[in-house]
Amino acid sequence: MKGRAMAAEMSQQPAVLERLVQRRAAIAAEVRQAVPRPLCGTTLVARGSSDNAALYGRYVLEMAARRPAGLSAPSIHTLYRSPVDMDGYLAVAISQSGMTPEVGTVLRRLREQGARTVAIVNGTGSPLAEEAEVTIHLDAGAEVAVPATKTFTATLLALGLIAPALGEVAWSDAEIVALPGQVAGLLSDRAPAERLAARIEDGERVLVTGRGMLLAAALETALKIRETTGILAEGISPADLWHGPIAAVGPGFPVLSFLSGEADDPDASELTDTLRRRGARVQVISSEPGADCPLPAGVPPGLLPILAVIRGQQVAAALARRRGLDPDAPAGLSKVTLTR
Amino acid sequence: MKGRAMAAEMSQQPAVLERLVQRRAAIAAEVRQAVPRPLCGTTLVARGSSDNAALYGRYVLEMAARRPAGLSAPSIHTLYRSPVDMDGYLAVAISQSGMTPEVGTVLRRLREQGARTVAIVNGTGSPLAEEAEVTIHLDAGAEVAVPATKTFTATLLALGLIAPALGEVAWSDAEIVALPGQVAGLLSDRAPAERLAARIEDGERVLVTGRGMLLAAALETALKIRETTGILAEGISPADLWHGPIAAVGPGFPVLSFLSGEADDPDASELTDTLRRRGARVQVISSEPGADCPLPAGVPPGLLPILAVIRGQQVAAALARRRGLDPDAPAGLSKVTLTR
Repeated sequence: MKGRAMAAEMSQQPAVLERLVQRRAAIAAEVRQAVPRPLCGTTLVARGSSDNAALYGRYVLEMAARRPAGLSAPSIHTLYRSPVDMDGYLAVAISQSGMTPEVGTVLRRLREQGARTVAIVNGTGSPLAEEAEVTIHLDAGAEVAVPATKTFTATLLALGLIAPALGEVAWSDAEIVALPGQVAGLLSDRAPAERLAARIEDGERVLVTGRGMLLAAALETALKIRETTGILAEGISPADLWHGPIAAVGPGFPVLSFLSGEADDPDASELTDTLRRRGARVQVISSEPGADCPLPAGVPPGLLPILAVIRGQQVAAALARRRGLDPDAPAGLSKVTLTR
Repeated sequence: MKGRAMAAEMSQQPAVLERLVQRRAAIAAEVRQAVPRPLCGTTLVARGSSDNAALYGRYVLEMAARRPAGLSAPSIHTLYRSPVDMDGYLAVAISQSGMTPEVGTVLRRLREQGARTVAIVNGTGSPLAEEAEVTIHLDAGAEVAVPATKTFTATLLALGLIAPALGEVAWSDAEIVALPGQVAGLLSDRAPAERLAARIEDGERVLVTGRGMLLAAALETALKIRETTGILAEGISPADLWHGPIAAVGPGFPVLSFLSGEADDPDASELTDTLRRRGARVQVISSEPGADCPLPAGVPPGLLPILAVIRGQQVAAALARRRGLDPDAPAGLSKVTLTR
């Protein structure tokens, strides 16, 4: 069966996330010991799919620490070999495989220059783990399908579980505990994503929008669609869509729109209206009533991206099935990025 | 004449850059007074086209300061309204129009929370200037064409001229002084970009690659092509291209590749070879002999992106002309991003 591995790995997500949730106190305690005081800032080191996780991490870590967080520029260390004083910084490296050589190289350079270091990896024996003072094993099991699913959502949750080590988070313990069950609920409700995929399956381009933390979900969903179907899907913030690519949006153009459903984001509905006036096939993924693809209501903004990513996985897998493609092994892709 | 404004504004770039170069000592001195000591880091605030300039800025400012630099996440301040202690940070805001409301709002929030602030604007009376302790006026004159050209390269140069206020830069005074003349040389040599455009004009998708600081040039070139032609052009780092979108690259697929021409980037030629084996129409923009579109030789990596952007502008304008479009006023685009 085409897509068997991806489907199996998607279905394991509630159990993987549940195991991480149960380790939440230990993870926060271990990372807390590595956080420099006073903290200048946090830097995230990632490549490819993990870059989308890092974008989520930069929000939750900056908002918890109340000190700036950002993504490292690997080229500064690997291409230009420029020295950077990392005193006062926490560096968090992410590599689902733990094998992307550049991520390990950058983390080592950051540590040598004074950063305290944390690595998020899946599986033991990861070379990346050797470069970090603290290692968080995702314990997600082997991932065989090329499109990362369970390791991606596990990485998002791990970043959320690191956040309390830096400061106060904007969700309750009960809300974290409820998350794996909400993921299971979405996974057992496949029809909305199937219907959504049916409405856009003929598109050769797709734009996926999301603001703030939901941009990470939009970028990840676009990547999953590209990986599983070859459709040129592009994740983009609403602000950047306004500024340029909206010119390419005409009648029938498919747009997936992740919306937070918060009343304090007046731009979101304005953008949706404008896109619909241009004739775009806007498909809303949101907890608001009437969404094309629903998310649970009442989830704090800091945890919503994890649920949004599940919907994105379902859409990508459904699009591949409808096009007769095998999402497990798209042409021309390998699992590990080998950039030095 | 279609594209008259864009052509005129492109031709003004040597004079605009020359005026900035002459102000280099004053700019560095003024910014130096605003830099917190000790410096925790630098954060850049931008949207849309200016975001591509900010990406260049994060490299030159981090490499000069030898302290991390990164791009701010405006949503943290405008959507989530989350407090962030900015003590020890220099914030540099960029808005070519000075009118993007969100950039001003974020800069004010950063200053209120302890950041020292610099604004890069074009024209006087910019609301953004009121939010900053130090304002650098680009003095580029009015920009009428929707695709920003002279204000973009002026912004890159302004960021390069700020860098010495933070530490040691990797170029000489003579190399900065030579830059406007090199820009004039490229602008008077239009044939290579015309030939390149002729080879890819039928493409409905274009990938534009660049590593390290040249990623800023790749993203900006992709944006210019989208703005002037509606072609779905996507800027991407070689590492991220390897990881995913390469699956969509088949025979005839146009790829513009900005290469630094440095021997210490072994991945670049490997990627070019792989793309060519897949049948892609790879067009190299580089200072290496044999490039499809040449850049001057011997330019330091920190200044090369400014010249690379000129080539990208020429390609975007030529593509629009060949398709009978007016690059000055693409359908559906306005000059100012009004995201709150």
